[in-house]
Amino acid sequence: MTYSAELSKRLADIGAGEGYKLSVETDGKTYVGTVMPHHEFSAPDIIVLKMKSGYNVGVRVTPETKMEIVDKPIVREKKDIEVEEKKGLPTLVLIGTGGTIASYVDYRTGAVHPALSTSDMVNAVPEIREIANVRAKVLFSIFSENMNIDHWQELAKAVAEEINNGADGVIIPHGTDTMGYTAAALSFMLGDVPKPVILVGAQRSSDRPSSDASTNLMACARFCTQGKKAGVFVVMHDTSGDDSFAVHIGSRVRKMHTSRRDAFKSINCSPAANIDREGKITLNMDLPAISNKKVEVKEGMDRSTVLLQYYPGMDPALFEDIFMKSKGVVIAGSGLGHVNENMIPLIKKATDNGTVVVMTSQCINGRTNMNVYNTGRDLISAGVISVLDMLPETAYVKLSWTLANYDKDKVKEIMATPLVNEMSDRRLF
Amino acid sequence: MTYSAELSKRLADIGAGEGYKLSVETDGKTYVGTVMPHHEFSAPDIIVLKMKSGYNVGVRVTPETKMEIVDKPIVREKKDIEVEEKKGLPTLVLIGTGGTIASYVDYRTGAVHPALSTSDMVNAVPEIREIANVRAKVLFSIFSENMNIDHWQELAKAVAEEINNGADGVIIPHGTDTMGYTAAALSFMLGDVPKPVILVGAQRSSDRPSSDASTNLMACARFCTQGKKAGVFVVMHDTSGDDSFAVHIGSRVRKMHTSRRDAFKSINCSPAANIDREGKITLNMDLPAISNKKVEVKEGMDRSTVLLQYYPGMDPALFEDIFMKSKGVVIAGSGLGHVNENMIPLIKKATDNGTVVVMTSQCINGRTNMNVYNTGRDLISAGVISVLDMLPETAYVKLSWTLANYDKDKVKEIMATPLVNEMSDRRLF
Repeated sequence: MTYSAELSKRLADIGAGEGYKLSVETDGKTYVGTVMPHHEFSAPDIIVLKMKSGYNVGVRVTPETKMEIVDKPIVREKKDIEVEEKKGLPTLVLIGTGGTIASYVDYRTGAVHPALSTSDMVNAVPEIREIANVRAKVLFSIFSENMNIDHWQELAKAVAEEINNGADGVIIPHGTDTMGYTAAALSFMLGDVPKPVILVGAQRSSDRPSSDASTNLMACARFCTQGKKAGVFVVMHDTSGDDSFAVHIGSRVRKMHTSRRDAFKSINCSPAANIDREGKITLNMDLPAISNKKVEVKEGMDRSTVLLQYYPGMDPALFEDIFMKSKGVVIAGSGLGHVNENMIPLIKKATDNGTVVVMTSQCINGRTNMNVYNTGRDLISAGVISVLDMLPETAYVKLSWTLANYDKDKVKEIMATPLVNEMSDRRLF
Repeated sequence: MTYSAELSKRLADIGAGEGYKLSVETDGKTYVGTVMPHHEFSAPDIIVLKMKSGYNVGVRVTPETKMEIVDKPIVREKKDIEVEEKKGLPTLVLIGTGGTIASYVDYRTGAVHPALSTSDMVNAVPEIREIANVRAKVLFSIFSENMNIDHWQELAKAVAEEINNGADGVIIPHGTDTMGYTAAALSFMLGDVPKPVILVGAQRSSDRPSSDASTNLMACARFCTQGKKAGVFVVMHDTSGDDSFAVHIGSRVRKMHTSRRDAFKSINCSPAANIDREGKITLNMDLPAISNKKVEVKEGMDRSTVLLQYYPGMDPALFEDIFMKSKGVVIAGSGLGHVNENMIPLIKKATDNGTVVVMTSQCINGRTNMNVYNTGRDLISAGVISVLDMLPETAYVKLSWTLANYDKDKVKEIMATPLVNEMSDRRLF
C-alpha cells in the first residue's frame, strides 16, 4: 500500500516526497519530521514522519492540514580519513558482516539497508583510533537472518587468519537477529582462541540519534585493548541507558527483545564482564588470559541437524521424516525437558536409527532434569541426551558441529561436556 | 542405572532401602535424609539423600561410611474431612488435571507422581473453606506435557458446565510444563467467560517444605472470591519468596524458568493483578467485571497446525512437507520476525497452497515488525501474517483455534485482532 492519491498529490504540489523534512500543522499541533514511506498498518491518508527522536509518528492529513518543506533529503557524504598507524598501540581488526550496525535507512523505500562500510564505522568512532590501530575489512554485507553455516565457516577462518597474523583482537559487527547463533558457532569452531573475538550489533541504525552502534563499538575496542582476556564474546548495551555494556560469553547469550538496546542477555550465568561508559571493566568470572598461540579452526558442521520446539498437540506423524532424515535433532522440550508420550516412540525409533536427539528446555532459564518425572526417564531410555542449562540455540549449533567433527561414539560424551562454557558443570547440580 | 551391588548390600544389611530416613556419617560429616533412587549423573556408590530442605544431596559411601536408620518410610495417611456448606459464601469448583501441584514423590521410584486427589488439595489448605464453599472433581490426572487438544476441549466444556451451573469461579490445578498453552486454549475457547477461571500449578511437589502448592491455591481462591473480575488467568508466585502472587492474563503468560517458583511471567504486559500474602489484590489493568451470563464454548481446534522456530541453516527441503501438509504454521522468527531468504519461496508456495503462515518472534519480548527490513517486506509479500507482540505459543493455539472456527477468508482478520488480550492493539504501535 502507498499513500492515498490525494496525499501523494498534496506532497507533489509542494515539491516534497519521501526523505523531505516537513512541518505538518493539523488540529493546532505542528509536527516536524522526515517523510517516510507509507506504514503497513496506517490508513493511506496518514503521513508517517520520522521525528528528531528517531521514532515515527503518523499524522492524518485532511484538507485543512498545512504542510511546508523544512529541509531537502540528506545526501550522505563519504569522507575518507587518512589514518596513520600509531606505534605501540594494539591492532584490532574489524570484520564486517552487515546488519543494522552497518546500515542506514533508505529514505526512498524506508527500508534499512546494509550499506555503511566497515571503515565508515570506524571513522564514525574516532576515539577508537586513540586506543588501537584498526584495520577494517568487509567479509559479507547481509542481514543476519541470512547468515548460514557457510558464512559461519568463512567467518571463523577469516578470524583465525587475522589472529594468526598478529591481530590483538577481532571485532565482528553483525546483525542482531542471529548474532547469538553465530557467536555460539564461532565459540566451537575457534575453541580456545588466544585473543578476544567480539561480535557486536546495534538495535538502532547509525543514522538515528538513539543509535547504539558507536557506543557498542567503543566498548568492544576497550574490552579488546584493556581486558586482556581471550574468548568469543558478544558486547551490547547492558541497560536501556548509554552507560553500561555487557560482555556476554558467546555460547550463553540470547536476543531476548525485538528492539530494546539491552536486548541481549546472558542466560543461566552472569555476563562475563561489564564495562562502564569510561571503559572501566569489571570481570564477573574467571576468563582465559590472552596468549600468542595459533588458532586452529574446526569448522565442520552437519547440515541436517534441526532445532524443534515441543508444543502440546505436536504430531509425531508430521515430524517423522525430520527425525529419521536428520543426523541430529535438538528439542526445546517443556519444563525440565519433556515431550508428550506420543512423541517418545518416534524419538526411540530415530535414536535406534542413529539420529542423535538432544533435550533442552523452552523455558530458556534453568536446566533440564530428566530424572524427576516419568516422562524424563522414558526419554533417557529412548536415548535422549540431556544438556542441562545449555541454550536450545547453542545446543543446535554444538550438535551440528559435534556430529561433523567427532566420531559417532564420542558425540554423546562431547555433548554432555562443557567445552566453551556453554553449560554448567554437571557436578554443580 | 541403580546403586552399586556393594551399596545395595550395605543398605539391605541394615534393613534399609529407598524411602528410609538414614543418618550417613562419612569424613567426619553426618547427613540425615531420606534415601532416594540412584541419580542419573551420580556414580553408583553415591547415595542420594533428600534433606529436610527438600533438596537432594549425594554422599559417597566407602567401607568407612557409617549408616543408620533414623526413620521408616512415611506412609501417606488419607483423611477424609466432612465438610458442611456455609451459606452466603461463594462457590468455587476445583477441576483437577494433574501435575506437580497434585503430586507426591514416590519414595520407591523417586519419581513425582500425579496422585493427590483434588479434595486432598483443598483439605491441605483449610483456610479456603473460610472464604468459599469448594467442590472438587478430578477430570484428568496427567502430567501437563501430555495435555493435548482433546484435553483442552474436554476441560473447556467442564469449566463451562460448572459456570453455567452457578460456580462463582473455577480453579484448575495443572502441571506447569504446558500450563501457558492450556491457559491460552481456554482463553479462546471460553471467550468472554463471565467468571474467573484460574489455572494454578506448583513448582515444588506438595510434600516438600518449600512447596508452593497451598499458597498458590489460596491466592487463587482469594482472587476468585474478592477480585470480582472475569477471564482466564494463571496464578503463581510472583517472586521467589512467599509473599506475592501474580495473576497473569491467560494468553500472555509463559513459563520462563524450569524450576523457580516465580517461573511464570507475563510477557509484553504486566500481570493483570498482584496479590499479597494477606490477600490484598492490586489490579494493574482494567479487567471485565463478573456477570451472570452463560458461557458458550467454541472448542474447535485444527490438528495440523504447527509451531516452528527459525534457526540459521533451516533447510526448506526438510520442512517442505510440514508447510504443505499443515493448515497453519506459526514461525518464531528471528528478531522483528525474519527467516532466511531460502525459506521465503517455500512459505510463498505454502500460502499459495492455502496454508496460513503467522510470524512471531523468538525474542519472546517485543513485537514483530515486518516493515523495517527487506526480509520482512518479502515475507509480507509471501502472505505471512504478522501478529505483533503475541507469544509464539499463544499464536500457535490461536491459529489452530481460528482455523477450526472461522471461514478461511476471516482467518487473517481474526489473527490480527486481539480477542482475549493476547496482543496489543495495532494502533498502539
